[in-house]
Amino acid sequence: MAARRIYLDHNASAPLKPAARAAMLAALEVDANPSSVHADGRSARRIVETARRDVAAVVNGDPANVVFTSGATEAASWLLTPHWRMGRAPLTMSRLIVCSADHPATLNGGHFAPENVTRIGVNNDGLIDRDDLASALSNHDRTAGVALVAMHLANNETGVVQDLSAISPLVRAAGGVLVLDAVQAAGRIPLDISDGSADFLILSSHKIGGPQGAGAVVSAGGLLMPAPMVRGGGQEHGHRAGTENVAASAGFGAVARDALAGLAEMAEVAALRDACEAAILDIVPDAVIFGRNARRLPNTIFFAIPGIKAETAQIAFDLAGVSLSAGSACSSGKVGPSHVLQAMGHGAFGGALRVSIGRETTAGDIDAFATALKTLVARHAANATAA
Amino acid sequence: MAARRIYLDHNASAPLKPAARAAMLAALEVDANPSSVHADGRSARRIVETARRDVAAVVNGDPANVVFTSGATEAASWLLTPHWRMGRAPLTMSRLIVCSADHPATLNGGHFAPENVTRIGVNNDGLIDRDDLASALSNHDRTAGVALVAMHLANNETGVVQDLSAISPLVRAAGGVLVLDAVQAAGRIPLDISDGSADFLILSSHKIGGPQGAGAVVSAGGLLMPAPMVRGGGQEHGHRAGTENVAASAGFGAVARDALAGLAEMAEVAALRDACEAAILDIVPDAVIFGRNARRLPNTIFFAIPGIKAETAQIAFDLAGVSLSAGSACSSGKVGPSHVLQAMGHGAFGGALRVSIGRETTAGDIDAFATALKTLVARHAANATAA
Repeated sequence: MAARRIYLDHNASAPLKPAARAAMLAALEVDANPSSVHADGRSARRIVETARRDVAAVVNGDPANVVFTSGATEAASWLLTPHWRMGRAPLTMSRLIVCSADHPATLNGGHFAPENVTRIGVNNDGLIDRDDLASALSNHDRTAGVALVAMHLANNETGVVQDLSAISPLVRAAGGVLVLDAVQAAGRIPLDISDGSADFLILSSHKIGGPQGAGAVVSAGGLLMPAPMVRGGGQEHGHRAGTENVAASAGFGAVARDALAGLAEMAEVAALRDACEAAILDIVPDAVIFGRNARRLPNTIFFAIPGIKAETAQIAFDLAGVSLSAGSACSSGKVGPSHVLQAMGHGAFGGALRVSIGRETTAGDIDAFATALKTLVARHAANATAA
Repeated sequence: MAARRIYLDHNASAPLKPAARAAMLAALEVDANPSSVHADGRSARRIVETARRDVAAVVNGDPANVVFTSGATEAASWLLTPHWRMGRAPLTMSRLIVCSADHPATLNGGHFAPENVTRIGVNNDGLIDRDDLASALSNHDRTAGVALVAMHLANNETGVVQDLSAISPLVRAAGGVLVLDAVQAAGRIPLDISDGSADFLILSSHKIGGPQGAGAVVSAGGLLMPAPMVRGGGQEHGHRAGTENVAASAGFGAVARDALAGLAEMAEVAALRDACEAAILDIVPDAVIFGRNARRLPNTIFFAIPGIKAETAQIAFDLAGVSLSAGSACSSGKVGPSHVLQAMGHGAFGGALRVSIGRETTAGDIDAFATALKTLVARHAANATAA
């Protein structure tokens, strides 16, 4: 493709940051097994442990409580299990409570039997139903085991940020454990696992501009942990076996540093997002922007154009050189109604378009998007008149 | 470190091949989510699917039967579960049979309860005990479920290659399923999953000079599959959720092509290995080379020097700029007696040194190794005299 494409799909996979790329290249030069005791192995080990500190810093966590995984989905599959340990003693999570607007990695319940999973609804703005959560927690039989609550902190489709100050006390009061899918929140809003609001955070490298194939679980304590899912050697303090991915860790660490520093630029990102929303509403006055009444990430717009199918619009944008998504890219090539919109009571819209930007997005990119949107709407109007 | 180090630890992690590096760099330019339907996503998808074909070719498999994982350990943890499916129908593997000289990812039994795991012994040469396997299979209660047999094809410490013509018929006759850990065999001996000797092969990218964080399960059929372990979106035909690692796949695919072509050079690698063994026996006439009576990989030497501890020798080599290992690097920084030697009845040696070379290893590297060995042995003799 000759012309530069406009990439507005950061929530699916953010472009690799130069710092992450440089760190990966340097790590590929070392390229040994961090478990090897020779000098090459020790060099690899240092890279992994430096990355661990950098990833911990993004959430103000303790590096000792960071377990690297191959990504956020593996992290969620590992955490969403009934089989846990408090130190060496086994502990059973007898119920999983998730949110109906979660990413499939959480929504589908991981390794819990479907009958032990409760889904909590969200309101029209995408915020979870507190009464629903309170009732699920009070109905839970604590004599059978602990309740595990797992949900997104920021929604991948709408960007809506859940209100932890409302959720955490409910989970705490019920003696539950709170896992937050912070994949979309990281690098876009400040995160602090030391504030006591959550027990575990799930992070993904490639959603913040690092390499794919790297994720992490950060725990607040480190004593209560799920039984290992990937089993073999004793890597990651026995929590996750397999040779550590040195280059991916290096890239993840570098982008974690970048993300932490980049929080200071989020006001500019939000301003660009606002300009984009203004353009949408200017071109399509009856466009519906979902979750707009709630607190949202500064980078995400999820909107519907009445009368134009999201998939059709997505293809038109693609042909115009603009990459954005209709819903999420969470399952392979699948295009269908958004379960997030359905959960929000906006199922009648079927789908919607997601614009998700990053710090490298420019005003020119937004202009190009607006031009493509204008063309699309005009063509649709002409077709409608002709028909 | 000023002087170039001599890297003789390919079985722990082989140095990244230039072709893999180039493929990764190109893929990092694309860097989108392969599940995104826009042009960027489709480019990423093409890279992953090309890599799938290349990885399938290494074992003469069908690309449709390749599932990418984050590595061989994840692959083993996924396969080593009682919970399988024949198409959509659930199927239980009620017993796991492993080999006592397996890598911990297999040896530890994955997700099987310890009481449902049987370990088969090996003889002095490291070849599995056929009678032991036959007896385990005949003692298995087939009314309770299928027997899953999982073992290494080539040993990571000794390089000993198991005799499939002896093992496969036993497993077949008992209606069992055979999983082969082909991590060390790939790229060193020809592999052909279409010959009917095994049902599943486990492959690792970084052991053949590709990036870390990439592995694969190749199935002979594709109908009988373990229940998904990493769950979420529908990636990898529903077998393994999570955004595909595009760059790692690209590197894995490139090195798979390289490995297939490189099989033609294995005679040269074996000649270098033989020269290295001759040097060892010249310098240390009473050195013991394990598995020498069996068929071995062309690149691996596992040997003990009577009177010198392997860890001590390993450190001396390291200081001399030679990276090799004492046992395997399979569990983080752990140094202890080799379970493989114990299984072979050579437990009295405690540990041994592993030299594992690759196609880029030179005669000069072997000379440097021999010089370091000579120095080490002379120093040890001097110390022994002084004491």
